[in-house]
Parts: sequence; structure tokens; C-alpha cells
Amino acid sequence: MALVPMIEYDDAAPEVRAIYDDIRATRQVDWVNNFWKVLANDPATLERTWQSVRNVMAPGALDALTKEIIYVAVSVTNNCEYCIHSHTAGASAKGMTAQMFRELMAVVALANATNRLANGYRIDVDERFRDPAPR
Amino acid sequence: MALVPMIEYDDAAPEVRAIYDDIRATRQVDWVNNFWKVLANDPATLERTWQSVRNVMAPGALDALTKEIIYVAVSVTNNCEYCIHSHTAGASAKGMTAQMFRELMAVVALANATNRLANGYRIDVDERFRDPAPR
Amino acid sequence: MALVPMIEYDDAAPEVRAIYDDIRATRQVDWVNNFWKVLANDPATLERTWQSVRNVMAPGALDALTKEIIYVAVSVTNNCEYCIHSHTAGASAKGMTAQMFRELMAVVALANATNRLANGYRIDVDERFRDPAPR
Amino acid sequence: MALVPMIEYDDAAPEVRAIYDDIRATRQVDWVNNFWKVLANDPATLERTWQSVRNVMAPGALDALTKEIIYVAVSVTNNCEYCIHSHTAGASAKGMTAQMFRELMAVVALANATNRLANGYRIDVDERFRDPAPR
Amino acid sequence: MALVPMIEYDDAAPEVRAIYDDIRATRQVDWVNNFWKVLANDPATLERTWQSVRNVMAPGALDALTKEIIYVAVSVTNNCEYCIHSHTAGASAKGMTAQMFRELMAVVALANATNRLANGYRIDVDERFRDPAPR
Amino acid sequence: MALVPMIEYDDAAPEVRAIYDDIRATRQVDWVNNFWKVLANDPATLERTWQSVRNVMAPGALDALTKEIIYVAVSVTNNCEYCIHSHTAGASAKGMTAQMFRELMAVVALANATNRLANGYRIDVDERFRDPAPR
Repeated sequence: MALVPMIEYDDAAPEVRAIYDDIRATRQVDWVNNFWKVLANDPATLERTWQSVRNVMAPGALDALTKEIIYVAVSVTNNCEYCIHSHTAGASAKGMTAQMFRELMAVVALANATNRLANGYRIDVDERFRDPAPR
Repeated sequence: MALVPMIEYDDAAPEVRAIYDDIRATRQVDWVNNFWKVLANDPATLERTWQSVRNVMAPGALDALTKEIIYVAVSVTNNCEYCIHSHTAGASAKGMTAQMFRELMAVVALANATNRLANGYRIDVDERFRDPAPR
Repeated sequence: MALVPMIEYDDAAPEVRAIYDDIRATRQVDWVNNFWKVLANDPATLERTWQSVRNVMAPGALDALTKEIIYVAVSVTNNCEYCIHSHTAGASAKGMTAQMFRELMAVVALANATNRLANGYRIDVDERFRDPAPR
Repeated sequence: MALVPMIEYDDAAPEVRAIYDDIRATRQVDWVNNFWKVLANDPATLERTWQSVRNVMAPGALDALTKEIIYVAVSVTNNCEYCIHSHTAGASAKGMTAQMFRELMAVVALANATNRLANGYRIDVDERFRDPAPR
Repeated sequence: MALVPMIEYDDAAPEVRAIYDDIRATRQVDWVNNFWKVLANDPATLERTWQSVRNVMAPGALDALTKEIIYVAVSVTNNCEYCIHSHTAGASAKGMTAQMFRELMAVVALANATNRLANGYRIDVDERFRDPAPR
Repeated sequence: MALVPMIEYDDAAPEVRAIYDDIRATRQVDWVNNFWKVLANDPATLERTWQSVRNVMAPGALDALTKEIIYVAVSVTNNCEYCIHSHTAGASAKGMTAQMFRELMAVVALANATNRLANGYRIDVDERFRDPAPR
């Protein structure tokens, strides 16, 4: 059970209801998941987090599905149970197939392995990789 | 400096050379980066790791660029300096633009934040999110 | 269920009982929580860990509440379920209010986000921040 | 060297300059640290991150120094070099003494140790610790 | 419940059955644990992962028990519940005694603590420790 | 450069000198590494940490080399640069060969990979693995 109670719509203050409404409208769903009902105990964090999610996860140079896939990759690396479930569901809703999910798991596992080989052997960054950011 | 010496092509045993050749041919480049030159101290790990990278990172249901982006997301979360540099370069070579890189950083940061909100508040997984894997 | 049985007071060896007594006396409570009952399977670790907790968590330049808050911050970052529960309870007992808890969660989430922005962009430490430790 | 160039004030777009001005005014300093100059490559992330930092780190139920101390605790746990330097400097500027810093390090180390004892032994959460959040 | 169904032997494709057979033969047991039944949803990952486990975990310069102990140390540090259970069982089957398990937990806890002291104080690597890898 | 100055023997208080002497005597070396010189800024942490290291790392049911190997495994997983260098050197001094080091790296990488497969797929612990701790 969460450390704080979940705030249901009918019990919510007007500014919380407004955010719940915006979550449902933006996502075109008729419900609000537990994450937001818990954050509603702290309206400032609820608002800030929702604005960040809405802005960062909106399609841009990366499409919405790719962004959900990145979210799952981070959540698996950190082992956040809630986030793995919610963002796997989110990615599925946006078109992630079973085969894409499997490949995602395989890349995350491989990256976690080679991260440790690079760290453990203290491998020097190749000069050619310095300042490689795209322009 | 790496904990073990780097094995250059001219000093490498035949089975290591064969892998270096395959790396260059697969990637269509004329060089081999430090990661492989260090792993060459352990030919069994070199071979196993290269086979995994070649198979897992090949285009499939997820394209090669998306896989590199996932790799960067994991490496940033784990703070693997070598891997951030090498896979950012790899993603750039596969078409990641500056704007895509910025959005990638923004999603990774957001996911690391909300992972802790979910963990810290001990939020229960919504029933609707249980068994959400795509079919 | 824990990987080892919990050692109850009545079944404990004298040196374990002495530590249980000290835990209760130091904390002015009439019970011992599961953490210590499990560590009691290894009296050396029980003693060493309890001495560390007693010394490190005692009020000093940082008061006892601030120390519990730091403990929660680390435990949330690492996602240690037991530790989040026990140290949130500990902090509450020492005076953490609901609003303080919410702000703690917000700072932990923010720090986990900006940690990745700094790592991912490989931001150089400002010269002015070098050797900033207080004297 | 950072993966992207740092944007200096004189080269910055008006909306970036406005944020630099607000950072300096809010912190009552005459300079802007590298973190923001790098984020300025992505004005949306710069703005969102600065607004979060300004709001979350402002004194509330937890004072500004305690919030910086929490930030250092997270950054040390994650081993973010930039963040350890910048937030140790920030905490020092807000009054953290050498002794407070030492105690902070000691608590962070202890928490990282006991987190693993709790996880490794798979210790069950005490019933008394369930739903312990302050009201 | 796992995000994907477990594939039982009778329902498995021939190439999956062959791997199940090899797992049982290699380990000289008459069953296959859930990890493999879940990976069987992705036969390529099942095969690659099993080949890696079989090769890496075979006795070499490090004996099989030491390798299982290392596996537990990593799993505890990352807090992977499944892996802590399965590799503690594996180590026990290979001869880990109760006292060895306790000492393992104590070393893992200590290492996680001193890792943060070294990181937090930003301690410079001693020149004598540079290039210390065994020849 | 470390965040605090290193305390050399000639400048150390008597209780710090006594610990330096004990470190050198216990390890049968004629020098003290930077880790302890930095901790000496906080004599209480120096003493507590050294006592823990001396007790935990002493040969027991696990020999001293195995304990150093576990230490390296944790340090690589956490990416603690100082600790990887110092404990790889320590393990080498206790008999770790080049081949043992390579196998250690391979096991650590594999464990970090399969940890994420288990976490990402949310694999249920087998009943047979419950309560597997050795007696």
C-alpha cells in the first residue's frame, strides 16, 4: 500500500481536478492511474510532474513510442516496478509489438553488461568519440 | 589508462583478428574502437560480446537507431562514461540529430525522477497495468 | 519471507540479547524491528552494524531528524523497500511532517533527474566548484 | 569536454538570457555555472529544469540547506561528479560546516550498506512500519 | 505475475526444448526454473543468454562456487529479487555454507558503503594503484 | 583533487597515527593509501571504517582473496573508480591472476545483464528458490 492515500476525483481540490481532467483529455482515456492520485497529495509536485510529462513525452524529433521505449529502458535499469508496468502498458498502447518489447529487453540487458565491462576495465574513451554530439 | 593493455591488430592472435575484421566489415568502418582492443585480452569474452552486440543491435522490429538510443539511455542512467561517448557517436552516425539527442536526455532525466517518486511513495501498480505486455 | 529466520529475544544468545536491550534503551521503544532480528543470525554483523547506526545516527552537527531524512533519500534512490518504510517511520517519529516528506520526495526526484542531465551531457565541473568543501 | 558547447550570455537568445538573469537574481550571484550553459542548447529543458530547481529548492517545510544536503546524498549515491561538486559548494554557501559534511558522508555510506543488508537478506517490512507516512 | 507467459516444455518449440534439455543436463537437475521459461518467449535471447551462462559460469580460473558468489554480490547491489533468490540457491547447491553467506552479505554491505565514501570525497586514485591488473 | 586535504602521518593526531600504524601492520606494507588519508579528516569515520574493513575482510569461511573479488564485483557494478583500482590491486596482491580477473569481469557483466532481464520481465521467484539460504 502506498505511503499516502490516493486522492480520488470526487475528493480532489479544484486545481487537482483540473490536472486530472487534463491528463484524461491529453491521453484520451477515461481514468487516471495511481501515480497521479498519489502525487495529488502534493499539488505542486503533481502539477510540475504532469507538465514535465506532457511536454517531454509529446511527439517531437523523437516520436511518442520511442519516448515510451526509452522510459521503459530506464525503468528496467533502475528496477522501478510501477514504472515498468505503467510504461510498458503505455508503449503497448502506442504500438509496441511483442517482438519490439523482446528486442528492447535484449538491448537493455546487453547495455547493462557492456557498461560494466567498460567501467571495470577502465577503458579510455577513443579520441574519435570525443565531442560526438550531433549538430 | 585501462587496467589491461590494448591489443592492436598487428599483435593480435588470428581468432582476434578475425573478430576485428568482422567488426569493421559489419560496421563498414576502417578502425576498431578501444572497447574491443581491451576485451581482446580475453578472447572468449571478446567473441561472446561481439556476437551479442552484432545480433542484438542488428535492425529487427526496432531499427538500428532506436537500439542505439536505448543504449545511450541505459548508459546515462548508469553513468558509464565510455558507453555514453561511444553510443552517442554510434547513434549520431545512424542519424540521431541534435534535437533527438536533446529529447533523449530530457526523457532519461524525467524517467529517473518519476522512478523515484513511484518508489519513494511505494505506489501500487494499477490492476489495469498488470500483464500489459504486447501480444 | 527473509532468507534466514528471525531470532526472537527469548531464543537469542546473551550477546544478541544485550544488543536488543541496547537498541530498545537507545531508542526508548519496547520492541526490536525485523532488520535486527535477521542480522542476529550473524552476531558479528549485528554488533558492528548496530554500533555504526548508534554512532552515526546520533545527533551531532546534523540533528537526528536531518540524518533520517538523508537515510530516506538514499533508500529511495536505491529503491530499498524495507529501508524506505523503516526510515520514513523513523523520520516521522523524530518530527518529519507530511509536508516535509513531500518536499523530500520532490528533492530526491529532482536530484535523480539532474544527475542524469549532468552525466549525459558530460558537463565539466566549474573551476569555482573545485575544492568546495567547507572548512 | 561536454558533448555540446556551452552557451555564453552574449551569444544567448533572449529567452535564455532571461533565465540566466533569473538564476543570478534568485541566487544573488554574478555568474552562471556550466550546468545551465550546457542546458541552454535545449531552451525547453533549460526552462523546465530551472523552474523545477527554483521551486523545489526554495525554503519550505525543509530549509534550503537541508534540501542541498539531500541533493548531495543522492548525488553521492549515484556518483554524479558534477553534482557532488556543485551541490557541496551550494550547501557550503548555505552554511554547511566541515563537520556537517563529514556526518553527511557517514550517513550516506551507512545507508548504502544497510540498504544492501535489507535487500540481500530479503527482510520483510514490519507491520508497524506499514503506512508510516506522517499526516 | 511475469509480463509474458511461461513456456512449459510440452508447449515449447523444438529449439526451445533442446535448450531446456541442455539446461537440465548441464546442471544435472530434472526441472527448469522460471527465468528460462520466460526467456523462451524470445528464443534468440534464450539461446544467447543460456550459452553465456553456460560458458561464463563453468569452472575456470575461478571455481563455480566463487562465480555464484560474485553473482549474488552483483544481484544484491542491484536489488534484483529474482536473482538474489536463484543465485543464493545456486551457491548453496555448490557448497556455500550459512557462514559463507553471512560473510558475503557483510562484504557486499561494506563495499557499498566505502564506494560512497570514495565517491563522495572524490578521492584520487593512488599512483601505485594505476595499472594494477594482474599479468 | 579530493574535496578535503589528505592527512599525512607527520601531521596526524595520535589516534590517527595509531590507525595508520595498524593499517600498515595488518597489511604488512610500509604505506597508507589515499582513502585513509582522506577519511582521517573525520577520525570517527576513519576508525569505524577501518575496524569494519579489518574485521569483515579478514579470512573466515570465505578466504581473503574471495572477499577482495566480491569487493571488485560490487565496485564495478557501482562504477567506483577509486575502489576498482584499489581492490583490483588488493586482489592481485592476494593472488588474483590475469585469467581470474577476466573471469570476474565476465561474471559481473553477465549478472548485470540477467538482473535486468529478470526485472524487466517481472519474473516470479520459483517456489523452490524461496528460503534457499544455507543452514
